[in-house]
Amino acid sequence: MKSTELGIRVRSFREECGVFGINAASRAAELAFLGLYSLQHRGQESAGIVSSDGQQVYGYKGLGLVSDVLSADVLKTLPGHLAIGHNRYSTTGSTTLDNAQPLLVAYRGGRLAVAHNGNLINAVELREEMERAGSIFQTTMDSEIIVHLIARSRAPSLEGRITEALSQVKGAFALVLMDERKLVGVCDPSGFRPLCLGRLGSSYCFASETCAFDIIGAEYLRPVEPGEMVVVEEGEMRELKALEPGARAHCIFEFIYFSRPDSVVFGESVDRVRRNLGKALATEAPADADMVISVPDSSNSAALGFAEESGLPYELGLIRNHYVGRTFIDPAQRVRDQAVRVKFNPVREILSGKKVVVVDDSIVRGTTSRKLIRLIRKAGASAVHFRVSSPPIEFPCFYGIDTPSRAELIASSHSTKEIAEFLGVDTLAYLSMEGLRRCVRNPDDFCYACFDGSYSIPVQADADKLALERRAGSPPSTSQNARSLSVDSAHES
Amino acid sequence: MKSTELGIRVRSFREECGVFGINAASRAAELAFLGLYSLQHRGQESAGIVSSDGQQVYGYKGLGLVSDVLSADVLKTLPGHLAIGHNRYSTTGSTTLDNAQPLLVAYRGGRLAVAHNGNLINAVELREEMERAGSIFQTTMDSEIIVHLIARSRAPSLEGRITEALSQVKGAFALVLMDERKLVGVCDPSGFRPLCLGRLGSSYCFASETCAFDIIGAEYLRPVEPGEMVVVEEGEMRELKALEPGARAHCIFEFIYFSRPDSVVFGESVDRVRRNLGKALATEAPADADMVISVPDSSNSAALGFAEESGLPYELGLIRNHYVGRTFIDPAQRVRDQAVRVKFNPVREILSGKKVVVVDDSIVRGTTSRKLIRLIRKAGASAVHFRVSSPPIEFPCFYGIDTPSRAELIASSHSTKEIAEFLGVDTLAYLSMEGLRRCVRNPDDFCYACFDGSYSIPVQADADKLALERRAGSPPSTSQNARSLSVDSAHES
Amino acid sequence: MKSTELGIRVRSFREECGVFGINAASRAAELAFLGLYSLQHRGQESAGIVSSDGQQVYGYKGLGLVSDVLSADVLKTLPGHLAIGHNRYSTTGSTTLDNAQPLLVAYRGGRLAVAHNGNLINAVELREEMERAGSIFQTTMDSEIIVHLIARSRAPSLEGRITEALSQVKGAFALVLMDERKLVGVCDPSGFRPLCLGRLGSSYCFASETCAFDIIGAEYLRPVEPGEMVVVEEGEMRELKALEPGARAHCIFEFIYFSRPDSVVFGESVDRVRRNLGKALATEAPADADMVISVPDSSNSAALGFAEESGLPYELGLIRNHYVGRTFIDPAQRVRDQAVRVKFNPVREILSGKKVVVVDDSIVRGTTSRKLIRLIRKAGASAVHFRVSSPPIEFPCFYGIDTPSRAELIASSHSTKEIAEFLGVDTLAYLSMEGLRRCVRNPDDFCYACFDGSYSIPVQADADKLALERRAGSPPSTSQNARSLSVDSAHES
Amino acid sequence: MKSTELGIRVRSFREECGVFGINAASRAAELAFLGLYSLQHRGQESAGIVSSDGQQVYGYKGLGLVSDVLSADVLKTLPGHLAIGHNRYSTTGSTTLDNAQPLLVAYRGGRLAVAHNGNLINAVELREEMERAGSIFQTTMDSEIIVHLIARSRAPSLEGRITEALSQVKGAFALVLMDERKLVGVCDPSGFRPLCLGRLGSSYCFASETCAFDIIGAEYLRPVEPGEMVVVEEGEMRELKALEPGARAHCIFEFIYFSRPDSVVFGESVDRVRRNLGKALATEAPADADMVISVPDSSNSAALGFAEESGLPYELGLIRNHYVGRTFIDPAQRVRDQAVRVKFNPVREILSGKKVVVVDDSIVRGTTSRKLIRLIRKAGASAVHFRVSSPPIEFPCFYGIDTPSRAELIASSHSTKEIAEFLGVDTLAYLSMEGLRRCVRNPDDFCYACFDGSYSIPVQADADKLALERRAGSPPSTSQNARSLSVDSAHES
Repeated sequence: MKSTELGIRVRSFREECGVFGINAASRAAELAFLGLYSLQHRGQESAGIVSSDGQQVYGYKGLGLVSDVLSADVLKTLPGHLAIGHNRYSTTGSTTLDNAQPLLVAYRGGRLAVAHNGNLINAVELREEMERAGSIFQTTMDSEIIVHLIARSRAPSLEGRITEALSQVKGAFALVLMDERKLVGVCDPSGFRPLCLGRLGSSYCFASETCAFDIIGAEYLRPVEPGEMVVVEEGEMRELKALEPGARAHCIFEFIYFSRPDSVVFGESVDRVRRNLGKALATEAPADADMVISVPDSSNSAALGFAEESGLPYELGLIRNHYVGRTFIDPAQRVRDQAVRVKFNPVREILSGKKVVVVDDSIVRGTTSRKLIRLIRKAGASAVHFRVSSPPIEFPCFYGIDTPSRAELIASSHSTKEIAEFLGVDTLAYLSMEGLRRCVRNPDDFCYACFDGSYSIPVQADADKLALERRAGSPPSTSQNARSLSVDSAHES
Repeated sequence: MKSTELGIRVRSFREECGVFGINAASRAAELAFLGLYSLQHRGQESAGIVSSDGQQVYGYKGLGLVSDVLSADVLKTLPGHLAIGHNRYSTTGSTTLDNAQPLLVAYRGGRLAVAHNGNLINAVELREEMERAGSIFQTTMDSEIIVHLIARSRAPSLEGRITEALSQVKGAFALVLMDERKLVGVCDPSGFRPLCLGRLGSSYCFASETCAFDIIGAEYLRPVEPGEMVVVEEGEMRELKALEPGARAHCIFEFIYFSRPDSVVFGESVDRVRRNLGKALATEAPADADMVISVPDSSNSAALGFAEESGLPYELGLIRNHYVGRTFIDPAQRVRDQAVRVKFNPVREILSGKKVVVVDDSIVRGTTSRKLIRLIRKAGASAVHFRVSSPPIEFPCFYGIDTPSRAELIASSHSTKEIAEFLGVDTLAYLSMEGLRRCVRNPDDFCYACFDGSYSIPVQADADKLALERRAGSPPSTSQNARSLSVDSAHES
Repeated sequence: MKSTELGIRVRSFREECGVFGINAASRAAELAFLGLYSLQHRGQESAGIVSSDGQQVYGYKGLGLVSDVLSADVLKTLPGHLAIGHNRYSTTGSTTLDNAQPLLVAYRGGRLAVAHNGNLINAVELREEMERAGSIFQTTMDSEIIVHLIARSRAPSLEGRITEALSQVKGAFALVLMDERKLVGVCDPSGFRPLCLGRLGSSYCFASETCAFDIIGAEYLRPVEPGEMVVVEEGEMRELKALEPGARAHCIFEFIYFSRPDSVVFGESVDRVRRNLGKALATEAPADADMVISVPDSSNSAALGFAEESGLPYELGLIRNHYVGRTFIDPAQRVRDQAVRVKFNPVREILSGKKVVVVDDSIVRGTTSRKLIRLIRKAGASAVHFRVSSPPIEFPCFYGIDTPSRAELIASSHSTKEIAEFLGVDTLAYLSMEGLRRCVRNPDDFCYACFDGSYSIPVQADADKLALERRAGSPPSTSQNARSLSVDSAHES
Repeated sequence: MKSTELGIRVRSFREECGVFGINAASRAAELAFLGLYSLQHRGQESAGIVSSDGQQVYGYKGLGLVSDVLSADVLKTLPGHLAIGHNRYSTTGSTTLDNAQPLLVAYRGGRLAVAHNGNLINAVELREEMERAGSIFQTTMDSEIIVHLIARSRAPSLEGRITEALSQVKGAFALVLMDERKLVGVCDPSGFRPLCLGRLGSSYCFASETCAFDIIGAEYLRPVEPGEMVVVEEGEMRELKALEPGARAHCIFEFIYFSRPDSVVFGESVDRVRRNLGKALATEAPADADMVISVPDSSNSAALGFAEESGLPYELGLIRNHYVGRTFIDPAQRVRDQAVRVKFNPVREILSGKKVVVVDDSIVRGTTSRKLIRLIRKAGASAVHFRVSSPPIEFPCFYGIDTPSRAELIASSHSTKEIAEFLGVDTLAYLSMEGLRRCVRNPDDFCYACFDGSYSIPVQADADKLALERRAGSPPSTSQNARSLSVDSAHES
């Protein structure tokens, strides 16, 4: 039932969300479905869509993959020309339907739906303050805080209320919101999480990545800028400077790992940046080897870049089984390294007797990499040179990425040499911070906090961190399937 | 999926809820499960339990029958010595998980869970007022209003906050509430809906009917009185006069139809009262007949009373198919009267050539009764004397029963003679108001508004009624299955 | 999942099957659905329908209740004017889909579907013989043996092949068969199991009980006689003497317990016979008591008969919870007598201080009755007189009823006095064999083997019994849900 | 429900099955699960396992992916040290559980289970002959014919019976069989379909591809040879020449498309052969281009070979969405080319303004390739040179691959020039037959019938082909989920 428990988690770093929004001539929910479908890699625990026909608001959300939760029958119950959607990897520990998005509420202004990617820094304070003032909370989502703030605002327009609400929160947010008639996309002043603006005929759309535009045949226009609010209403698009932009702090990990290579985020091609990472790595840390192999699929671009720059042949030395399902339970735990073996199979005919450069995007705890290297050696590799297309991760993220605590990050307490020993590789090299910065167009526009600990929005001391972690440790609970979203409003039918 | 659409609804009158609460030595949720299971007849659309181990609060709810939603695996996730549970027939039109109970929230005082049976008269006003003040609503349940009021209260204790909240609402409520450590049962000042207090060893329990005590082997103590609040904490039970009691207005329909005959509600045996109804009916409206038959199972006791008083033999002339399931769809709509035929089969060998008294508990729209009588005639009955063990229903209920609008109540616009013609019976007689009143111990303690329109709490004019109906007509939405309840609190771990 | 394990089995005696067949103007499967639905009490473990449009044969079957397995979507996949259906309580231990019926095969003559109620005495011999000759078996059903015999027959017509096949089998069978164009109903020469013939307009139909005719509005014509074969083809009905009839041996338990009271089986009203049983019992074994109560619902008619004859009032002293589901697991095993308590609740207000006659239809192991009596006593009954509307069951059934082994039948090794002590009743009386015989029209036409051990078809010695039991002990296996039936034939498209 | 209807089928060529078998110290079914899991690409419509503990045989099968059908709970019901497993893409039209494998039966020799990969040429004749002799068929699987033949054999040993049975069938079969104590792997005399022999400690195992050995940590020993039977009994392995080997006719398409690149089949590395195909293609049909891209993932190896040989850079120009699920329904059919777009996204940043070589493994109907090329052009490619790493497919396969009819094979009626026009490419080239033959070690050992029509086992005239097609057109039927396999045997407990 609980995918977090049953599923194999080879990955330790998880993106939390994909968001999408569109106004269309009709059946907006179908396009939202496709958008979410293409953003599936950003979150596989829940999916949901809210739509509006201008009068009524309809919603549905559930635990599971987009194509399982949002069946054709469900989409039929989501009529109208406006729709927003969301899929998520919970950044809190509990996989519960309560925390699935979009969040749909009724308030003075009518109905309001919110899809949120990111993480608020001052969530605990804001929530305590609101609870002291008499508010109730039904979920553990930051989005509920945002909605409370919007509902409390006295501003006459939705845009005004959103602006007033967001000026009180700190942290990372790429938000898509809608009421009965308006579609809104808005980014935090630092631009931590990506939000792209697109056009499909006379319609406008928002998405975390441009691959969601490609799948519906929409054209990519530009990123939503830090602090900007884009409002779509009656078919018209308006661009507002809603929040005072701060120093840009785009998440560099979108390029290193999260986004699909066929996407553009923060205005740059993911594939291009990722290729650059591989090339830079080859320049910085060449290896005496017979071939370069990737840990598929996330490291393919970087490995190809490494091969190109180094002149070594790129080989398909690891085959990935894409059928590793959410509900997969490995029944034969007695087979050593089973969990990794189920996902990756080294190709003996390619690796046997060869010196191999293995390119991976990052090392979090190191345990999976270690098992993988053991498999590669058993397949006959005579030498393994591990190359990581990003610097050592030493610090947790507070802006929306689900990282383990600092203690679990192997690089926070071990030297590269020690890590190499732990992994069992002949050589190990990370891309340098300088190298990383050279791979993007505007290196100063990015957040590198997970590498260097310089949090652009100060995370207040230890107390707060504990609070956040306490929240993550909230009651274990199981939940399944889907629910509809339905709140009535006393104001309109 | 959507049981409201697929299920056969032979009944037009539906009870909305069963509630249960217990403090136990351990595994309170298992006892709550059994309690809800025995209250299944009070609501079959959703079921849920919230439990607490004194520190953490756990919850689960879903659409469907108690035994389907609350599986053994689910109960394992609900540890602790405190538990409350709820099952419901939605009184609003939409069968959505959002409206399943108990409602579980976090607020200044920690966590709070509420299970509510009844209906508030001033829900719309309260909600509009709260929305104007900046509150958000995620459901259409009255319970959410009550929770908001509790959260806003500045009273230092939970008891104080509940009292303050409930003093602002008007209408019918039998509530079971809990936080991490306390279990509370409370009734509205008129005592519209039943709430019983029981004891199991050194534990205390609350239930809508005493059959929920029988199934767990608990002893029935007494009803919770109008306006009374009973608090169970640290194994001790305290009785508080929380709300100023008004004139009693117990729902007489609990005796006529809703409660199980093996239950005691409002301090009287349901079977006894129901037998009295049948006897009184036989006295008031005897019939020249060969036998008495019941519309099983709700009219069995009254029919037996009629037979006893009249001296006519009681026969099993209608057999009920108990497998009529939630998901039953009648595929052969072409067969006339199919929906009734699927549920009831007249026994030709008993009825053929006989003059029959048919005892039923009530007539709402009359359409089902009409079909049933047609079946009885086809089975050979030479005369049908229809006897109703309650007066004509002419007015809708605003205190928690899901009645059709007044226009749909056949007795609101038709004379008994006209109804007899519509039904196609030889004679038709209802129990008189006087007769009804004589069947209970304290006739002045009951609400008879559905018969005589005298609403003990004034229902304000037409505007309000429309508002309530507008709410009932809120967005159609489909939903399935279960969700967990999980809200964290910043105040305790 | 496995209903046999999870479900509460208060009953020890289980009927194995309901069968239905119809030719209709169109959509025969929908009528078969309704027929099976009304026969649900005869088997709740699996359900299936095979239909034909004259060219193609379609099938579907699954584990579960009729209305769950045969959804509207499934019925759409079963077109045509011919249909047969089946539901079953497995008489073998395993609840597997393999053993669900109808069995559908392709053979020389085209396609053939069989729905079987009953049990063959020489199944093991026949199967061994066929296996020796090179046959393969994919199920453990007797029906597969019958189909093999039909396929091997060289007779030119389907009727001839069925006759030839059935002349080789011994035991109990009420069969409904169909191929692409013909519908056939046939009974064994002793007429062990009931099969009724009905008419709906110009269509003919077969069913185990007449309640299946009532639900579709069909008229009951007559029983299919022992040894008779009724063939429906091209809208015409032909009656054939297929097998030499032997001495009649109708199952008397159909009247005592299995059939619905609103049915006619073997040409007699079940309710009438059951009422007679109660009256005879009152005459034979009166009791000094205040009232008569029934163990609902199977003993209602007999209890009413007892009340009528004895002049004691009939009371509803036990209330049955009809929501006891297939998947019900009692989580609170610590509560004593829980399993019985979940199903039955004694009404204290009725029983308290009273001397009670409890009428039940039979005692198998005695364990459930004992628990029930304990509950009745706890509810305050001052004396319990247990009256059983059939003689003591001392022998197992080999003709299609799933009885426990002889050792488990309490009456096979204990005197009535001992049983009374075990049950904890004041007095215990069974109906006598003579009394039982007087309750039916033609007492010599019935099988009373479970009472007196006189098996009308000799069951050969111990070896065979062991073989049958070995079969019943075949591999435990779990299975779920539904499968389609699909065999192609090389002979026609 | 019906995956064949709902799923997107971008591929027209489908492999039908993966088979696996193992004797292990214990819990063989868990290893069979892993084996099937790694063979998931060979068949996604059903999965099943039969196991034996030496006494009892246990089975389970269902529709769906290996990890969905064979849950941990199911595996617990499959004890024992012997297990065989199967997954399939039905080669007949109907996706029904009846046709899921392994087939498990009881016969004279006890129980027998068969997992079959391949297709018999004389299935219709054999079946007609057996039906004439009185046999019944419950499925449309060739395997049922094989089992009938084994059951009819008078040979004293299982090996003898299998040999006798297989000497009567013509066509392609790689079979894994088991009874209570023996595990058998056997190949047809031409060796059409692959079957590999492996060892895990002292256990032996069979699998369609060696990737199934890798996942359980087993060692690959050698292919099972054409006509060879390998018997594993009591931990010992015996190699028998069961059938007179004919000319070898290994399916060349295993190298071109079906097998995973990390597998060894027919004794050669799939990756190596596939790289050779790409190199040969580059030599035969070079292109003036900027880059080489693959249609992922099946063409990755060939594309890399092309890149290596041509000196052009290998780019990741198409990104594949691996979440395309079985139940995926494209709701927005109005979006042109949607089905392809959902699966593949071209990377504009890579392709824009570039001359691109697209390497694909084969062209069946050409419709999908055409849509894909349209997408690539829309992403900005200035020239598209389509290179196919196999010759034109002009003939259907009768040996176990599910090909469309000849009329649907674009190359059977169109010249390469015409196809190029249809696809909308600048140039199109296929690998030549000579080139293809040079890529494998022993070119004469392979079947190239789909390219040149020379069927090594003659397919008899038109009548037979129609018969086969008639079979494929057998009754449409829906089915879901899982069933257990259970047949008892009268011979042993």
